[in-house]
This record gives sequence, structure tokens and C-alpha cells, in this order.
Amino acid sequence: VPETLDRIEPRTHQPAGDLLLREIREQPAVIRRHLAQNDELRAVAARLRRKPPTMVRLVGHGSSDNAASLGIYAFGLLPGWTALRDSMSLSIYYGAELDFRGSCVIALSQSGRTQDVVEYVALARQRGAFTIAVTNDVSSELASAAEAVVPLCAGREEAVAATKTYTAELTALLLLAAGAADQEARIAGELSEVAGLAELTLEALATRLAEVATSLEFLARMFIVARGPEFATAREIALKLIETCRIGAEPLTATSFAHGPIAAVDELFPVWAVTACDPSLPAIKAAVDRALAAQAVVIASGPALAALPRDAGIIELPTPVPPRPLLGPLLSVLPGQLVAWATAHAKGFDPDRPHRLDKVTLAP
Amino acid sequence: VPETLDRIEPRTHQPAGDLLLREIREQPAVIRRHLAQNDELRAVAARLRRKPPTMVRLVGHGSSDNAASLGIYAFGLLPGWTALRDSMSLSIYYGAELDFRGSCVIALSQSGRTQDVVEYVALARQRGAFTIAVTNDVSSELASAAEAVVPLCAGREEAVAATKTYTAELTALLLLAAGAADQEARIAGELSEVAGLAELTLEALATRLAEVATSLEFLARMFIVARGPEFATAREIALKLIETCRIGAEPLTATSFAHGPIAAVDELFPVWAVTACDPSLPAIKAAVDRALAAQAVVIASGPALAALPRDAGIIELPTPVPPRPLLGPLLSVLPGQLVAWATAHAKGFDPDRPHRLDKVTLAP
Repeated sequence: VPETLDRIEPRTHQPAGDLLLREIREQPAVIRRHLAQNDELRAVAARLRRKPPTMVRLVGHGSSDNAASLGIYAFGLLPGWTALRDSMSLSIYYGAELDFRGSCVIALSQSGRTQDVVEYVALARQRGAFTIAVTNDVSSELASAAEAVVPLCAGREEAVAATKTYTAELTALLLLAAGAADQEARIAGELSEVAGLAELTLEALATRLAEVATSLEFLARMFIVARGPEFATAREIALKLIETCRIGAEPLTATSFAHGPIAAVDELFPVWAVTACDPSLPAIKAAVDRALAAQAVVIASGPALAALPRDAGIIELPTPVPPRPLLGPLLSVLPGQLVAWATAHAKGFDPDRPHRLDKVTLAP
Repeated sequence: VPETLDRIEPRTHQPAGDLLLREIREQPAVIRRHLAQNDELRAVAARLRRKPPTMVRLVGHGSSDNAASLGIYAFGLLPGWTALRDSMSLSIYYGAELDFRGSCVIALSQSGRTQDVVEYVALARQRGAFTIAVTNDVSSELASAAEAVVPLCAGREEAVAATKTYTAELTALLLLAAGAADQEARIAGELSEVAGLAELTLEALATRLAEVATSLEFLARMFIVARGPEFATAREIALKLIETCRIGAEPLTATSFAHGPIAAVDELFPVWAVTACDPSLPAIKAAVDRALAAQAVVIASGPALAALPRDAGIIELPTPVPPRPLLGPLLSVLPGQLVAWATAHAKGFDPDRPHRLDKVTLAP
């Protein structure tokens, strides 16, 4: 009987926050496990390569949907395919009669039990899509509904807030896109390098957490700004801060930020800028300049901090330069996860079991 | 020489907030003008019908991007086509080599001068897409870059926050999708009915504004929850509140709300629920129940308020039932626009000229 990954027994003897921190630290190993053992993934990628889809429809909720944001860039930049975060509601709840022939569906769900994801996959498959379930539970309902299954190889995730399964989803999407583009060996080599960099990053950031958590402890709201592959990171950091620290953190592309939200920024409305050494940098730099001009506290993370103005108002959370910008999100999410963990502690919340959330969301 | 719609002379003699309110009130007339005079739109729709695209790529920023959210439902439910809010960054800044043959691009821009929208359209056209500019300025750079032009018929918009051009974009997208599905006459009839309902709604809501503005005056943040066609409304109301009232308002689908953000809701973190008489209702009702259980102030708007629990904590902003849910966003955005206007006044802000924003955003 395969292990059921999401039936969580409360471990009352464990100090609060230990599960989340342990899972954050497992992420380099999760990337390596993916590279070592995911033959199913390679078989699915080979099939995509043989028969390219007209479009890749990505679906998932929460962190899985955030990972899908990177999928758009992975498929767009590696095989040059159009990928979209598809609307499940349109087909499931509103009964749109879309033509799925020629489409590939990639459904991301840690538990494999999210009901509308399962329904969407069944419908898309019936209408002619090639359907792939990417899940931590290969015996789940989602895995049965889809034509192909890619295991997440993340091991049981016990904290309610996803961390290592998010990393596993990013890795799976990158490897699927790489395989589709016949670039698997190169990207796998780079991912292996990223696993090593992630270990160093986790270590290096540990000493910075207390200071940052103190700065965030009394904040109610925040914008998190990024562009390109790192928009997935902005979304995921915002979700971690919302669910574990109850901070009203909203992810914005650099362009959206300039198109309205900049009006709301002030001394008590900080901006977190996710930098990258890539074509997003001028826009991120402009966002930081505008936030500083509005007297906002700026948190800047990522590998391009040297490009930002020297300003005592910037809290810096550096991460290393990835082998290519597309792989950056595997590193740049780490400061967000660690800061969320540390800030939850500073606020007296249990980072493992956020207020009002269950590991598997069964809401309509 | 066609009128240039976006060169705004400051009118210092005009009382603050008059422009925005006037433009909000012009919206029923804008819908009617579209129905009466938009032959260009009908010609473009006929071309779409003759040669259906493999997908519809919608692009725009700010309110235009919010309108695109409705476009996904309009094309999905009327002709049954897949529409997506495409990533401009992927192609423009990151150089992805996507195949645009068979795609239709609909680029939405009030001014027609937003640089990356113009660049994206030029690139997509060069790579084989059928490109349509939907703009208030038919002599703009965007109009020249695209193969076909659909005028917004909104008249000059002077307030920085878009209202009547958003309505004009929704109307254009609905009519394009209706034409593509050979249902133009029916949808045009329904839109004409909606114009009348919008007039009544503006009148009816006027008496409710002072009370709501008082409730919102000291709020720092808010979630705005919707699903389906009304997700466009949630996004647009959030943007109005952010830019004119500096409230950290974040739009969320009902599902995203349940997947994390509900953890952050409390007495000082209100939830605005956009209701509709459609398949979104159970999920919106569940979101309201959860928000009330968390002691949050709930603002509920739309035509399905009777389905919500009787609770003294709910501030109600009713709008009439539209002829079909797909047309609801033309009515359900009105309470958001009016509340943003009234709350900006209550806070002592000038609703016509938000802090740090220009009418045309030229940021990178």
C-alpha cells in the first residue's frame, strides 16, 4: 500500500514551528531526489517531445498555482510553447465547451485530492487533452484521473504551509519543459548545482532572520514585486506571509505595481522586491526607487542587490546567482519561507498550523 | 485630426472628485454608444467568425488587464474558445520564441500608448497573429501597430482612475465574443437592457455611499472575493480602492481565499464579497460564512445578497440581476467605483488625481 502523504497526525510533543523549518531545510534533498529517481517524469517528457501540444494548460491551487506561474516561463523559454494557468471554474462550474484536443494539461496537487482539479482533469481528458498529474500521492484520485503521473518525490509534507512540495513542483515543471525541449541533461546539471547553492543559502540566511522578523512583526500589509520567472516567487512568498504571519501581502508584477498600487505605498506599507540578474532588473530597480521615494521600508531579496541604490532603508536578503534566471525561483523563495517562519514565531503564531487552514482544502 | 484622448490639462477650477464621479455616471451612455455606432467592431467580429483562432491572447495593464479577466469568460462561454491573459514579459523582455500563427491577439489600452503593449502587438503580428487594438485613441501607436482597430467609444477620460473606459472595454470584449459566436443581436439587446439597469443602480447606490465610506475610512487592507465572470469585478474594485483610497485591497478567487488568505482575516481585515446569481454563489457564500466566523466586517455587493446569512455585520450594496451572469460585471463594478470615490473624499484624498499616478503609465 503506497504511503498516504497527507493524513497528518498532530504531533503535540513537537515544538511549534519545527515541522515547517525541517521541511524548508529538506528542499535541496528534494531537488536531488527528483534528479536521481524520476523515470516517470522522463517518460512523460519524451512523449511531449514526440507530440508537441498546441498549448500547455496548467492548473492547481495555492502554492501549486504559484508554481504554475513558473511553468509559463519554463515552457515558453525552453520548448517555446504557450502555457497558461487555465481557469478551472470556466469549464467545471460554468460549463464552457472548450476544445481540449491538442492541449496538454498539467495538474499540480500535493495531495491529489483537490476536488475541482480532479474534475477538471477528468473533463479535459474526456475532451481530448493529454493529461498529466503532478502529485505527491501517486495513488490519489488525481493520479487515477490523469493519463500520466509524475511523482513529486517530496516525501510526506506535514506542515500546513507548502514548502518542499512547492520546490518539487518547480523542479518537475522545469524538467518536463527541459525534456520537451530535448535539453534535459543540461537543465538537470544546472538543477544539481542549484541544490548545492540552496544548501549554502539556507545556512547563510539563518543569521539574518531575527533582525528581519523584528522589522516585520508589526506590519499589517505589504506588496511583493517581481517580474518574469520570479513572479512565481513573489506569489509564493506572499502566500507564506499571509498564511503563517497573517500579513496582507499582495504579489504584483513590476508593471501592475506601477499601474496603481504605488499610490498606496507609505511608511507603513512596505515593498518586498524580488531581484534577478535578468531582463526584469530595470523594472524592479524602478519599483524600489519609487518605493523609497514614498518612504516605504524596502525588503530586497535575490542575487541582484548590488544593482539597487545604497540606502539604509533597504533590508537585504541576498541569494546566489543561479545557473540561469529560469532556475532562480528555487533559490529566491528561500528567504521568503525562512522570514515567514521566523516572523510567525516573533508574532507568537504556530508556523506549522496556521489559523483556520487544513492541509487539504476541501472548500467549494 | 482625430481627438487625442489622453492629454489632460489640469482643471484647477473644478472641485476635487468631480471628474471621476462624472465619468462613473457616463457609463450607461458609453454602453449605448458602443451599441449604436461601433461598425468597426462588427467587422472585426465577422472576421473572427470566418476564421476562428486556436486561442485568444488578451493583453493590457491595470484596468485593461482586469477587463481581460472577463474576456476569458466571454470567449469561453460564447464561441467556446480558449482565451488567456498572455504574458507580455515572456515574449518582450525574455525573448521567448512562441508560435503566434493561428492566435488572435486583443490588446486593450485606453491611451494606445503603453509601450510594452505596442511592442507585444508588433511582435505577435510579425509572427503571424491576427492583432486587434481596442483603444480610445484610434490614431495611437497601438492602433497603427495592430491589423484591426476597435474604438472604445468612451470619450475623453480625464480622471486618472479608469471607469468608463473599463466599461467600454468590457462591452467591446462581450460584443466581439458575441459576434464570434454569431450571437451579436441577442447580446446587444441584453447590453441595452444593462445600460438601463446601470442608470438605476447608480441612482439607488447614491444614498448608501456616506455610510459605507465611513466604515471604510480607517481601514488599511481588505480582501475582495469573487469567482467566474465577477473575478474581473473583484480585481477592478481592488484597483480602484488601492489607487484612490490607498487601501491595500487584494482580489482573490473564492478558491484562493480558502487556500491561505482566510488565515489572515480578523476584525480589522474586512472581506468584500462580489455575489452573482450563478454557479459561483455556493463558494462566495462559503467565503462570507468563513469571514463572519473570523469576526471580519463583510461588504457584500451584487444581485445575490438574499442568499447570504442575515447578519448585522454585513454591509450590503445590492445591484440588479443582469440578463445573464456574463454581463453582470457591467453592473457589479458600480458599487466599487462609487465607494472608492466616496471613501477617497472621506479620507481627504482627491479621487481625480491619485497620489503618484499619471494617466498614462510609462514605467518600464
